[in-house]
Order: sequence, then C-alpha cells, then structure tokens
Amino acid sequence: MSQYQIAVIVGSLRKDSYNRKLANALVKLAPPEFSFKHMQIGDLPLYNQDDDANPAEPVKRLKAEIVASQGLLFVTPEYNRSIPGVLKNAIDHASRPYGQSAWADKPAGIIGISPGAAGTAMAQQHLRNMLAYLDVPTMGQPEAFIQAKDELFDADGNIGAASKNFLQKWMDRYVVWIGRHAG
Amino acid sequence: MSQYQIAVIVGSLRKDSYNRKLANALVKLAPPEFSFKHMQIGDLPLYNQDDDANPAEPVKRLKAEIVASQGLLFVTPEYNRSIPGVLKNAIDHASRPYGQSAWADKPAGIIGISPGAAGTAMAQQHLRNMLAYLDVPTMGQPEAFIQAKDELFDADGNIGAASKNFLQKWMDRYVVWIGRHAG
Amino acid sequence: MSQYQIAVIVGSLRKDSYNRKLANALVKLAPPEFSFKHMQIGDLPLYNQDDDANPAEPVKRLKAEIVASQGLLFVTPEYNRSIPGVLKNAIDHASRPYGQSAWADKPAGIIGISPGAAGTAMAQQHLRNMLAYLDVPTMGQPEAFIQAKDELFDADGNIGAASKNFLQKWMDRYVVWIGRHAG
Amino acid sequence: MSQYQIAVIVGSLRKDSYNRKLANALVKLAPPEFSFKHMQIGDLPLYNQDDDANPAEPVKRLKAEIVASQGLLFVTPEYNRSIPGVLKNAIDHASRPYGQSAWADKPAGIIGISPGAAGTAMAQQHLRNMLAYLDVPTMGQPEAFIQAKDELFDADGNIGAASKNFLQKWMDRYVVWIGRHAG
Repeated sequence: MSQYQIAVIVGSLRKDSYNRKLANALVKLAPPEFSFKHMQIGDLPLYNQDDDANPAEPVKRLKAEIVASQGLLFVTPEYNRSIPGVLKNAIDHASRPYGQSAWADKPAGIIGISPGAAGTAMAQQHLRNMLAYLDVPTMGQPEAFIQAKDELFDADGNIGAASKNFLQKWMDRYVVWIGRHAG
Repeated sequence: MSQYQIAVIVGSLRKDSYNRKLANALVKLAPPEFSFKHMQIGDLPLYNQDDDANPAEPVKRLKAEIVASQGLLFVTPEYNRSIPGVLKNAIDHASRPYGQSAWADKPAGIIGISPGAAGTAMAQQHLRNMLAYLDVPTMGQPEAFIQAKDELFDADGNIGAASKNFLQKWMDRYVVWIGRHAG
Repeated sequence: MSQYQIAVIVGSLRKDSYNRKLANALVKLAPPEFSFKHMQIGDLPLYNQDDDANPAEPVKRLKAEIVASQGLLFVTPEYNRSIPGVLKNAIDHASRPYGQSAWADKPAGIIGISPGAAGTAMAQQHLRNMLAYLDVPTMGQPEAFIQAKDELFDADGNIGAASKNFLQKWMDRYVVWIGRHAG
Repeated sequence: MSQYQIAVIVGSLRKDSYNRKLANALVKLAPPEFSFKHMQIGDLPLYNQDDDANPAEPVKRLKAEIVASQGLLFVTPEYNRSIPGVLKNAIDHASRPYGQSAWADKPAGIIGISPGAAGTAMAQQHLRNMLAYLDVPTMGQPEAFIQAKDELFDADGNIGAASKNFLQKWMDRYVVWIGRHAG
C-alpha cells in the first residue's frame, strides 16, 4: 500500500502541456510506496476574499486533497518570468482564509519545462519565495530547469535515455526529502 | 480633453478592496490631462493556451483597452509574498499569443497597500520582474509600500492629510514618467 | 557539552550594527545544547576566481568553520533591496571552487533588522534564492522582518519584553529545524 | 566628440573574464557618439558604514566617475543565483551615504554571459530589483542571457557571426534608451 500520497500541481491547463507530460513521466520513476494524484485547478474560480466564508466546491476539494497528502510536487511552465496566474490562483485559494492554509508543513519539490534555454528558472525563484512564506519545506538541489527537446520523452511517454539519469537522481532525492519531512 | 488615458489594474476582486480605494483616491491627485479607466479582470477565464485562437470576449476587451491606453497604473495587494493570481492571470492573458502582447512599451507605475508592515514590497519585486520582461518601462522611485491605517483616507475617500504629501509627490513623478515614455 | 555548533553570519561590518546586537541577543534564547560562533567576514578579499587554487587564509578559515558547523544563522541588514555585498562576497567564497562548496546540507535560519518598515524582507527573498541553490534547507516560518525600535533591546542587550515572545518562538522552531536536518 | 560617456561595470574580477570580453566586444557595436569607460571595482574595500565620513580613494573615484557618466552598462556573471558579491559591494559603495547615491537617474542596460544554459537570468532579476530602488531606469527588452560558447567571439575578440545580429539589436535599443533618459 502507498505510504506517501503526493499532490501533483501542474501549472498549465493546455491539453498537450509539456509540463503534464513531464509530471506523468516523472512519477513513473518513484518507488512503489509513493502514489501521485493530479490536483485539478482549471475549474477554480478567480480568488475573491469575499467568498472566503462560502468557498466554491472546487476550492473545498483542492484544500481537502492537499491536507490529505504527505507531500507536494509542483511541475510548472514559466509565463512572463514568473509562475502562471492559473497556478498562483490555486496557491492563493488553498492558503485562505487567513490561519487556515492547507499548505503548511507539506514538503515539496519543484520542477519545470519550457521551450526556452532558461527553462523556468525565474518562475521557480518566485515559487520558492511563496513556498517559504507558506511554510512548505522545499527541496533545494538538484535544481531542474528542463528545456523541451524532442528526445526528452520516448514513444510511450517515458523519460528518454538522455535525461533519465538526471531525472532519476532528482526523484531519488525527492523521495528522501519527503521522507525526512512527512509527518 | 484628456491627453493621457491610463489603464488602472487593481489586483484584488474584493468589493471593499483597500487597493481599489487607494486607486480611486490616487487618481484625484492627477492633473486634468490625465484620465483613468479601471480594467475589469474579474470576468476573465483562467488562461489556457488552447484558447489563444479564440479568446473570450473579456480577454479581447482587456487587450483592446490596454492597447488604447498611453500608460499603466498597477495597484495591488500582496498574496503569499507575490502578486495575486487574479492579477497574474490578467497579465498572462494580455501578453498572449506570443508576439501579440498588449503591454509592450506602455509606461507604468506600481503601488500597493496591505495590512502588514512590509506593505506589498515583495509582490512589487515580482511584478517588476514581469514588467521588465514585458518591456514595460516602470518607474523606480518613489517606491510606495503603503500600510493600511485608519487615517489613510478621509470621510470622502480622499487621501488623508498624513499621507497626502507623499502620494502627491508619487503622482507628480508618475506624470513626468508617463510623459517621457508615452508615444 | 554542546551538540550543535552554529555558524553565525552577520551581514554588516558596522561596529554598532543592529544586526550583530540582534544576533547576540537571539542566541541567548537557545537551549544549552546549542553553541554559536560568529564568522568573521570583514577580512575576506573580494572574490576572484583566479585565486581558487590559492585561497587566502581568511577564506580557508571561513570554509573550515562552516564545514565544522551543524547549522547556520544568517542575521543581515538590507542594502539596496538585497543582501549586502559583504555578505554575498562571503557566500561566494565559501561556495567555491566548483564542487567544493562548504554550504551544502547545512540547515539555516534567516532573520534581519532594519530601520525601515519593510524590515529586510526583500533582502531575505534574495538570500533564500541563493540558499536554495546552495542546497541549504532554510526554515520558512516564522518569517522575521524586524524593524529597529528603541525598546527592542533592554539595558543589558537582551531582547526587550515587547519582542521576546515572538523571538523565543522563532528560536524554538529554529532549534527543531536544525535538529531535523543536522547530521 | 563623444556625447554620451557610459560607465561600464563588469561583475567579475577574473583576468580572462568572459563578461569583460563580452563588454569589450559589445562596445564596438556602439555609434561614435558613445564612449565607454570601465569602472574599477577590484580595489574597493568591503563596505562598512563606519567609513561613510571618510571614504577610501577608490570609493571616491568610483562615485565621481558614475556621477560624470550619462549612462550605465552592467555586464555580469551569476554567482549562486544572484550577482557577485564584488558587484554588489560596488553598488553599495556608490549608493552611500544615505541621500548621496551616485546612481540616481542614470539610465542602464544589463547583460551577462555564463557557462550554464540559464545564462545569468536569475542574477539579472536581482540586479533589476536593486536598480529599481536606486532609481536607475533600466532597459527591459531585449533581455540577454548569453551562454558562453566557442563561436561567440572571433579571433580578434569581436562578436562572432552567430550572435552579431542579436547583440547589434541589443546595442541599437540601448542607444535609444540612453538617449531618451540622459539629461
């Protein structure tokens, strides 16, 4: 049985999102005691503090699923040198109302893929600033600023040979990081 | 007649938003050749690249209004040590599709108010990073990290005496900044 | 006997530095199994990669003391919305040559004091970005952006009554954080 | 005669610094009315506020040369995901004492080169935060995160064919930016 349930938050809503593909390939590198669940963030309303007393169903669902998890995996593109508004909106929802954040103490890893050479580096810096505030212990190294290239995935959607070593190492350290911090 | 039409983007959807009040009070300090229009961002969908070919009406409206403006005024709270997802979502929409950003070359000022002492300082740093990428010339000083206090506004919603000097100076420099950069 | 030796890095060289005073007062709130040693960074040369093969004595000393420690305590002012060059220079020295960083895996806490209301908040964001890269697990909450006020220290240089509760809580969590990550 | 004197600040002290090479090659792309002077920052002491009343000669020299310039060109590597301590130390010196900063209102461009794919992107974000505070109008686009590759420079130290177009465009916009903001 799975010991660690991980909430996977992908920062893009695009159907053929590279980041969703990366998330799907990455979780196959995890050991059997880890299971992963994709958080749905595309049906959340735009956050409005006036709704704090009566949150929409998708907001309740998101918060409940994060609370039930033992760790977080953020897989996100970079939009305009920061994280997408879609992802920030999900972060805002699950952090409210004041004093009832779902994020606190959930250990996390961050990874991202983009067409450009800088590979989501700047989005990840902003995300780290937010997660520090949210009291989410976030793994430092290995950093993973992945540039989208044809050979990254094989025909079955697995990580291709060129990047497999690096991403397996990333996952191995992630597993240790979660184990160290999870309840 | 108004020479400079400024697009005002408030980062909060809350009805009694302090930042909207600040925006409303601030624009009264501007000279007559400046007019201000509030951008509506609460009816935007969550950005999804799959919709780039068929943007929703509120997206078209936002982009058209920004393109028609001579300058930008961002008035935003800080959520989780960055700008609200709601604001980032609007920034993302108006920056797409690639090569058709509405933001480029529009000069801007940034200001924000919050209950905490740090007064949106960290949100503004992230916003500056985004605006540099979007090629928006953004005024440096005076920085304005306003802390919400009772005496900030008077009974008519104008800036109270204690802060009027500072905010009038802010507006005077903003006017010069817009004049220097606007077409 | 002391179980945890902590390397204290103060970001200011000023003789009457508020941050040094804060560091001195803060360490008195720690339990007996923690001991603290101030790192000297004012006699370091400016970092020059050409010296990597023959580091100056103060560089060797700094690296050896960090390697010998079980944790880090950064207490720093904010200069020009980032950490002081003096502190960044020390961080650079102890991170080199490539592959021989002294920082990796040392758990850390960050705190700072300044005359302004924003209280080193922006310097701390930059510092967190550097420490994530250096693989330094850094405590998230409680954040501590301290504004310098007369009553902060009592006549003996201890934390005054007004701030003692907050800073004792800060230290209590720091102790737990170090214990979780150290060796 | 030269109309615009530009102060060039290179963030590395290494003798064979890639960034110094880039600076030297870049200035050859400027029109004749621009002249460039390298600021010396390697002989500055570590900044200490106690010395504000009696600054060392290299500090006076740096401040005088910046004050005498019409614009700034920052060419810097990235150390530990921020700008080098050496460069931050120079920025700190020329910004002090309080109220006597040499930087205010000098328009600037930022560029950098590094061995890694992210090419100084994160250092530039931090630098932009500092320059906004210092009231330095800093050019947004084109961003230039240059990755060091063999063909970047030709045998004479000029920009090689592969990158010449991009860097000429960078310089052309820089020239316009300086012209718009310089006294």
